[in-house]
Amino acid sequence: MGKRTVKVGLIGMGTIGGSVAGLLLHNLDRINAKSDLDLVLERVADRDEGKLKSLALPAEKLLADAFELVRDPQIDIVIELIGGIEPARSLIKEALENGKFVVTANKDLIATHGEELLELARRKNLNIFYEASVGGGIPLIRPLKYSLIADRLKRVVGILNGTTNYILTCMSQEGLGFEEALALARENGFAEADPSSDVEGRDASYKLMILAGLAFGKVIDPARVYVEGITGITAGDINYAREIDCVIKLLAIGEELPEGIALRVHPAMIPHSHPLASVNNEFNAVFIEGEAVGDVMFYGRGAGGNPTATAVLSDLVEAARCISGQSVCSMVEKHAPGTKYVPIEQLSSRFYLRFLAEDRPGVLAAFSKVFGDHLVSLDMVIQKRRVEELAEIVLVTHLVREDAFRKALDQVMKLEMIRPNPSTIRLMV
Amino acid sequence: MGKRTVKVGLIGMGTIGGSVAGLLLHNLDRINAKSDLDLVLERVADRDEGKLKSLALPAEKLLADAFELVRDPQIDIVIELIGGIEPARSLIKEALENGKFVVTANKDLIATHGEELLELARRKNLNIFYEASVGGGIPLIRPLKYSLIADRLKRVVGILNGTTNYILTCMSQEGLGFEEALALARENGFAEADPSSDVEGRDASYKLMILAGLAFGKVIDPARVYVEGITGITAGDINYAREIDCVIKLLAIGEELPEGIALRVHPAMIPHSHPLASVNNEFNAVFIEGEAVGDVMFYGRGAGGNPTATAVLSDLVEAARCISGQSVCSMVEKHAPGTKYVPIEQLSSRFYLRFLAEDRPGVLAAFSKVFGDHLVSLDMVIQKRRVEELAEIVLVTHLVREDAFRKALDQVMKLEMIRPNPSTIRLMV
Repeated sequence: MGKRTVKVGLIGMGTIGGSVAGLLLHNLDRINAKSDLDLVLERVADRDEGKLKSLALPAEKLLADAFELVRDPQIDIVIELIGGIEPARSLIKEALENGKFVVTANKDLIATHGEELLELARRKNLNIFYEASVGGGIPLIRPLKYSLIADRLKRVVGILNGTTNYILTCMSQEGLGFEEALALARENGFAEADPSSDVEGRDASYKLMILAGLAFGKVIDPARVYVEGITGITAGDINYAREIDCVIKLLAIGEELPEGIALRVHPAMIPHSHPLASVNNEFNAVFIEGEAVGDVMFYGRGAGGNPTATAVLSDLVEAARCISGQSVCSMVEKHAPGTKYVPIEQLSSRFYLRFLAEDRPGVLAAFSKVFGDHLVSLDMVIQKRRVEELAEIVLVTHLVREDAFRKALDQVMKLEMIRPNPSTIRLMV
Repeated sequence: MGKRTVKVGLIGMGTIGGSVAGLLLHNLDRINAKSDLDLVLERVADRDEGKLKSLALPAEKLLADAFELVRDPQIDIVIELIGGIEPARSLIKEALENGKFVVTANKDLIATHGEELLELARRKNLNIFYEASVGGGIPLIRPLKYSLIADRLKRVVGILNGTTNYILTCMSQEGLGFEEALALARENGFAEADPSSDVEGRDASYKLMILAGLAFGKVIDPARVYVEGITGITAGDINYAREIDCVIKLLAIGEELPEGIALRVHPAMIPHSHPLASVNNEFNAVFIEGEAVGDVMFYGRGAGGNPTATAVLSDLVEAARCISGQSVCSMVEKHAPGTKYVPIEQLSSRFYLRFLAEDRPGVLAAFSKVFGDHLVSLDMVIQKRRVEELAEIVLVTHLVREDAFRKALDQVMKLEMIRPNPSTIRLMV
């Protein structure tokens, strides 16, 4: 009995695209046998002719124009791996309009236009799969969609950006400053020429939006995600973190609270004993807290051609199963509109605070009084280092609402013996 | 448009069954909405009438005889949660014969009779789902079946037994001996009255068989799994492990080597820096090494009613999607017969070895010579503690084949100045 051949079109021969093409051509027989499918890589599009020619495919299967590919009636599944919003969005829309299933690794697009594209897919009885958009090869989207379907998820905490995790690991393990660690990350291929989207937390915020959308079933507005990067973290902060038995990680945190959804990306001190604390170098991890399942964590390589390609191929198999009639894929996730948000000002944290002050009597009394007046209770005070003439003072607060802490800090910074530009880092609670 | 109602029969109201019934009755609307299904808990069977009466279900839905449930033509899906081989096997076979999909958490049965049951399911165009059989609420089976489908998996290393991990964590963190830690585990509900299947490694070996079967696509013969438990581990071994920057964990390791599959469960020293080292208390984790994906780890609660129930319910949704026409579930996994095995004697490890010897000149020279003669190369020698009149000697070897090491150890043990009953623990490499 002949199986229906499923024809695949691949757009984008960059790092991930190259790996997908390589794995697909190399492992095709095994993938087809395991999944009982007949997949074929039919056409590949890239503007760079050189990249196309490296493939063991006849010339008529190679295209410079990706729009030609999404209009080819022979193609059943389009894999979009060019990234960014346009022309990726137009290509995916046209692919769906033309009745093709879509697989993508495009986190920016899914985070910001996911609802529009999923709605179109739903209307056309198709689907979009995006396992590769978050966490590279770590299975995350599928576990959230299927495995944890019966649970109420309370919190998702992720180390979602390999570049910043590599930098923070170097700072922590080699005692480097931020700039030195960034240079090392560049040297080892873990940071791009322009690392701003990574180090400023935007990359992680897109991934958080995708995970939170699935975990809480809500439409997420990018403007409501608090984003703070790691450019202000110093070697000194890393050392103080160690003293209180913590490490600093860039965390992406999504929570469902009674009042709404809270979403934030910021550096945080986490206790050494927490499973996320040992996620080092370029590795990513997502820690999920469910009402019934308790704590679950997924860990692995969050980037890189081959790891990410395994996620693309798992989506490809899922799409192909829909086409070959093994599954009808009616489970296009729905994100409810009208999401309520809790701004970070209303969240409670413990805060680490480091500042410089004149080294004279009365300083401790002065800032302690301001904090006390604002009901900010201090858990720890460390004063043991001098920077030139000044005393370096480190405080850790008990749990306090962010707005109350900020108001108190504003007042403290008005004290004449305190120097400006304090360093503030939240502790994970 | 009316959806087809999918009627569920639940067998076994123990810890997991109770949680499944509770979550199902409590979250049913949300599960149905998310998955676009119309699931109903139709009947529940248990020999204990008291347990049944605790459910908010009318008397005609409660059964003392599980066979009556699997014969009820109204039931679409049977959830088997009684555990053990019989009558579970007969119940599942009859359920399949009667055209019902099956969900089970029964690791013993799937490990030893999985092939027979899957074959029957395949013949009947049905399927058996068993996500809950390994790792409680941690999504493992589905990632292995779907997410990593395009990759070649080389190794699966798991901490698969919560009882032993709890005991080893207590020994390590509280300095307790094995018996004291076991008593504490019992007190806190992490060890059963008869803990032998846990502490002797059999429980972990069943789970390993299931994971390895999926990861390598092979039929696994229980007799070919090397199993060694943790009853011989002492507080002294734990301390020496710490000195070489390791922790001791009961590992279940499956590998695909060029010569065949190697499967083993034994305590192992793993470096502190390895992600598995921080898996503590009753938590489980599975570390997977794939050719393309690299290292991936899944972590969570490996047991307990509610965590395990989330896995059962995710399977239930998958089964219900098959029935309601959302999926045809033709992907019943196939395990190839004729598996070749590599016995542990042919595997290479680094070994930790602790023994007592007379404290006199020539001892070191004597055993060193024997090891040297057998080409067992020593990486570390520690002699710093005395036990009564005797010197305690600790060695760590370089990589050496197990049979060569054992032969050398036999000879060392024949030296008259060496006392019998050495302690041997493999290091994870």
